[in-house]
Formats: sequence, C-alpha cells, structure tokens
Amino acid sequence: MIYLDNAATTKLKATALSAMMPFLTDEYGNPSAIHMQGGKARRAVETAREEIAALINAERDEIIFTSGGSESDTLAIAGFMKDKPKGSHIITSGIEHPAVLNVCREMENNGFSVTYLKPNVNGIIDTDDIKRSIRPETVLISIMAANNETGAIQRIKEAGVIAHENSIAFHTDAVQAFGHIPLDVKDMHIDMMSVSGHKFGGPKGSGFLFVKRGAGISPVVFGGGQERGLRSGTENVPGIVGLASAAKECHGEMPNVSKRVTALKKLLCDMALREIEDVKINGDINNSLPGTCNFLIPGCRGESIVIRLSSRDICISSASACASGHDAPSHVLKAMGLSDEEAVSSVRFSIGENNTEEEIIKAFRELKDVVSDLREIRGYIPTNTR
Amino acid sequence: MIYLDNAATTKLKATALSAMMPFLTDEYGNPSAIHMQGGKARRAVETAREEIAALINAERDEIIFTSGGSESDTLAIAGFMKDKPKGSHIITSGIEHPAVLNVCREMENNGFSVTYLKPNVNGIIDTDDIKRSIRPETVLISIMAANNETGAIQRIKEAGVIAHENSIAFHTDAVQAFGHIPLDVKDMHIDMMSVSGHKFGGPKGSGFLFVKRGAGISPVVFGGGQERGLRSGTENVPGIVGLASAAKECHGEMPNVSKRVTALKKLLCDMALREIEDVKINGDINNSLPGTCNFLIPGCRGESIVIRLSSRDICISSASACASGHDAPSHVLKAMGLSDEEAVSSVRFSIGENNTEEEIIKAFRELKDVVSDLREIRGYIPTNTR
Repeated sequence: MIYLDNAATTKLKATALSAMMPFLTDEYGNPSAIHMQGGKARRAVETAREEIAALINAERDEIIFTSGGSESDTLAIAGFMKDKPKGSHIITSGIEHPAVLNVCREMENNGFSVTYLKPNVNGIIDTDDIKRSIRPETVLISIMAANNETGAIQRIKEAGVIAHENSIAFHTDAVQAFGHIPLDVKDMHIDMMSVSGHKFGGPKGSGFLFVKRGAGISPVVFGGGQERGLRSGTENVPGIVGLASAAKECHGEMPNVSKRVTALKKLLCDMALREIEDVKINGDINNSLPGTCNFLIPGCRGESIVIRLSSRDICISSASACASGHDAPSHVLKAMGLSDEEAVSSVRFSIGENNTEEEIIKAFRELKDVVSDLREIRGYIPTNTR
Repeated sequence: MIYLDNAATTKLKATALSAMMPFLTDEYGNPSAIHMQGGKARRAVETAREEIAALINAERDEIIFTSGGSESDTLAIAGFMKDKPKGSHIITSGIEHPAVLNVCREMENNGFSVTYLKPNVNGIIDTDDIKRSIRPETVLISIMAANNETGAIQRIKEAGVIAHENSIAFHTDAVQAFGHIPLDVKDMHIDMMSVSGHKFGGPKGSGFLFVKRGAGISPVVFGGGQERGLRSGTENVPGIVGLASAAKECHGEMPNVSKRVTALKKLLCDMALREIEDVKINGDINNSLPGTCNFLIPGCRGESIVIRLSSRDICISSASACASGHDAPSHVLKAMGLSDEEAVSSVRFSIGENNTEEEIIKAFRELKDVVSDLREIRGYIPTNTR
C-alpha cells in the first residue's frame, strides 16, 4: 500500500508506541491517586507536559491535554467566549476546519457575532482583512496555522501581532501545522493553540490546547478538576506519553524531514503539471506544508479518483476526511474561488516522512492512468486538443 | 505490588491490548477516509459499536463513543439540557461523581434548577425521594448506577420507571457499574448511560454514552460531525476497539469474576471487622459492587494509611481519585451522615479480577499493622479498652 493521506491521519511512530507500552501494560496507575502507582503515571504526564511546552516555547502549566483537535478547538473558542458579553465579536476565516467553523456557528447561536474572512486565490488569509474587520467589540481572532486541504501556511505571526496590538486574544488551530513546521507561541503572539496527536505520528485520541497564562478560559468537559480544572477526566496516560514522544521526534527531525518531503511534493507536482493536461495546483506549493498538495483535475470527480486509486492500493483524499459520507464541494476550495464543479474535481495528496521517491513515482503513474480512464468515460477533451 | 485501587483505574486487559495492536500499528486509517485504509478503521469502529450495543440491549446507533466518563456525563446532561427552557428542573443525588455534580452546577449557572437528593445511611438513594422531588418542570433525572467510593448499587430500574411514568428522561452514570454488574437499558428504562473504558480493563481515553433514539441531545464538542454529529473528532480507533474487547470479556466472565471478587471482599471485611477495633463499613457490602468496600477506621487519617501502605507496595485509596491534591472530606461519606473527622478517617479498597486471596490476606496484615502504628502515634484508645 502507498499511503499518501497523511493530512487525514498518520501511522503511529514506532518510538511513540514504545514509549506508550509501559503505560499500556504495567504502569496503569491513575495520575490522581496518591500511591506510588499513581505517582508514576503523574510523573509521566508531567514530563510529557514539560517536553511539549519546551517545543513551542511555552510554560508547562500552559499545556492542557485533551482528546484531540476538535475538542481543543471547542475548548479554546467556546471556553474563551463563555463569560464574554453578548454581542462580542470573533474574526475567523472561511477556510477553517469544521471544528472551528462549527463552534463559531454555535457562538453565533449563543448571541455572539462572527466574521468569516475569505482567502486569496492561493488560500491565504490577507492580514489586512483581519485589521479591517476589527470592531470595538472584537474579542477573539482565530486563524489556522496551515490549511488541511491545501496545506496553505497562514501568516499567523502577523495575525497574532495585529490581535495583540488591539488587545484581542489570538487562537490558532495548528492541527495540521504542529510537528511539520516550527511554532513559537511567544514569538507568534499566540494565546491559544490547538494540536492533535494523530496528525504527526502520535496516537489517535490525544491532543492538547496551549493556553497562555491568564487567557481566562472556562471548561467544556466537567468533572474531577484535572488539567487545572480546564479538562476533567482521568488523563489518557499512554496517549499523552505517545503524543509527547512523537512531538519530540518530529521536532528533532524537522529540518531533514521537511526538506525530503518537500522534494517529494515538488517531484509529484512537476510530474502532474507536465504530464496531466489541464491540471492545476490549488494553492501555492511554495507556501504550504511540506507534504500537502491539492490538484484540480478537470474532467474527473475527485471521489472517483480516490476510489480507483484505492483499488490499486494507493490512499489519497478527495476532501478532508472530517466526517464520512459527505461529498459536498469543499468549502475551502470554494472560498478560494473554485466553482462547485472545480471543487469536486480536486484531490489532495499528503506525503509523509515514511514515503519514498519510488512510491511517489508509482502513485503518479497510477494517477495518470486513472485520470486518463475517467476522462475517456466522461468524454473530456483536454484544452489544447479542443 | 498489590493493587487494590481498581475503582480508580484498572490494568488494561491483555486481550484488549492485543485487539488494539493492529490499530496502533498497520491499520492506522482515518475512519472517515473513503479509501481501503479508512474502510478498515471504519469497520473496526462499527463492529465495536455493535458489540457494545449488544451487551446492554441497545441498538448500535445508540452508542456514541467519547473520550471517557467525564465527557460522557457532560454530553448527557449539558447536551440534553441545551434546548430546554430556563427554569427546567433536574433531579440528581448528592453522591454523584464530580462529573455529574459539576455539570449540574454549570446547569444551575445556566438558569436551570437542580435537586440533590441525600442517600440513606448505607449510601442508597431512596426512590420515594425521587418521586417526591418531581415538579411539573422536571425534565431529567440522573442517578448513578453504583457509587465510586462505597460501591453502593443504586435502584436505577426503579428510578427509570419513575422517570418514564412522569415523562422525564433518565440518565445514569454507570462508570463504576458497567463491566461489573449487568445493565440492560431497555429493562431499566435508561435513556442515557455514561461508561468509561479504563474502569473495567479497557484503555484510558475511551468511553461511550448510550443515547436512546430520539432522546434529543446536542453536541458539546464540535467539528466534522462524527458519531452522528454528537461527538466530532477523528475516532480513537485503537481506544474504541480496546473498549469493546474489554467490555465483551467482562460480560463473558461476569458471573465467575463477580463471585470470586465478592468472596475476596467478604474475606477482607470479615478480617477487618474482627481484627481492627472500632472499624466500621461505610455502606452495605451486600448491596454493593463486587470489589468495592469502604472502611471507617477511627484514629487514623485515610491519607496516612494510603501513603504508608504505598511504601509497603500496596495501593488503596482514601477518596475517589478524581483530581490530585484535594484532601477535603468525601462529599459521599458526608452525605451518608459521617462527620468530617469520620470521612477523613476512611479508606477504600477496590478489588479486581486479578487479585488473589493471598494478596488480600497480605494487604490486610499490612493494614492492621499500619493502623496500629498510626493509632499509637495519635494516642487513639479503642472503645472497648477505654
């Protein structure tokens, strides 16, 4: 199998699994227990917290472990808005992950107002648009660090600076970015940052929210008061340990992996642009995550490409895999100006550290073949032969 | 080490870990992905859902996977109350887990009213008290299936019948009960039931909420619309698979394990009552979970007993391990009528399927020794020698 859907989820790193194994077997204590078995679990959680904080230039009490990205986004936005007066205003973008978009819609139901900024043609939010959208009642700006469908890296440091110049809190959904590009919460003026473990070789069901000291959020999940009262529930000790292990490994290898994966992406894009007629890249591959690229392939439904490649043991995606069964045109691509037809004719390749050049070449050959078949079925005539 | 703190958390069952391993290694797909790797993950999740539903006499679309007990309780209560008119009324008990108590307090902040019923001296909620507390605006009754500190099994079928006779929804926090005593959601008139994986040999970070069709709850965590829109976020596939595996094993072995663990508990209680002067059992061991018992040991602080036993490689608990560092007197024991002094002089033993008679006898010898030391230090004179 050639797996090129690493933006949907990644294989758990072997080192992360090894780090988890003691906590999946003998070290099964509850971190809240005051006996030695609890103490071992508690120390493992606190070590993980310290390690993760160090990677993003945060303090360790600023890391709140959660079950993943959606919960982190919900906690950040709903938790922050909780005590804000009705009518308070949020600025976000129309290309955010559904976790941010749907919690923002919930905020609208709760009496807040939300501005959804449109990106430029390359899927980048213009920070001048952020500035222009600020009102006296704006309390929160939430802009993702990198987009899940196109890989487009957003100007979050600029967004953070603008937020802080205007005494507005700044949240970023870094679910796609963390582990793949450097993130420094102090330098980037970030108040809250959502991260999910399974997007960078950590375990599913793990994640964290960075919350700057004094950011003033309220819990969404109630209970025994774990995680400084911000996220109750017995800590997922193996998940937390695996998350920290994968995070550390990613950061250690980032320069090399980034270079190698970027080269594979460029190889794929070059082949596609050269050999598949009328193909376009959705976004700017020079300003995107190392492994993610999104192709518009006129004359083919993205979903058909995915299914046909799957039967050839190649895994890619036609849209973000955020919930099964929905084949609506991507809200991200539409926000970038694509038509419905163009949006459903697009596919995402997301290359990971485990992929090889041979895999990319093989996957591209199969893609070319599948595109040719599908275009023949639909009677698509490439532009230059019309 | 002798581990007698199974109500806090349990060792992951070897069979559950084996079931998880493929999903922690090669089968790492995102269940929402439409390619084959996604399909394998999706089928694993749906098989787990079906297996769990069968164990509690539910339909498979009534099982919503969550990250654990606290999230399930929050989703049940906050999710159910979401669209209810201000002034709506909830009946619960004063001996619920903090997850239920704290979300109920949150509901009070949101304009709802809550009645907290007191238990009898054995820690059982009188169902006549439930009846008497019903008002025209009562919409939800939430009574735990079994208590986490005393193991007291509540009359949830009676509570469910009362709820349904009055067209009120019934939720039960079955975090301590599930996997240890039989639960049938249809027979017991349960509309919502919270379960946590790590309390019965499943993995930490896993759990589910049973939600009867048509119960009408709203999500608490927002995002891509997984779990029928009620719990977004990429499914924790290994966690879900491990949860189902442990649940099946517990239910298969329940009659034997229950008998054996109950016998161990009786042995421990008999020794304690016979050999430690003035000891009392908090609750009724004939109407409690197989493995859980709670002792009042006058003249000793529970916490001191726990710490001293820990240094002798024995793990027990002085209160529920729901959050570290709090040594306030147990709200459960106080609700049962114990004084502050009595409540902080109590300890919980929770025996699991892995414990042996030799361990119980050894742990008791150490307990007796520790109690004798602590009483000497504090100058406690047993009643019959005063």
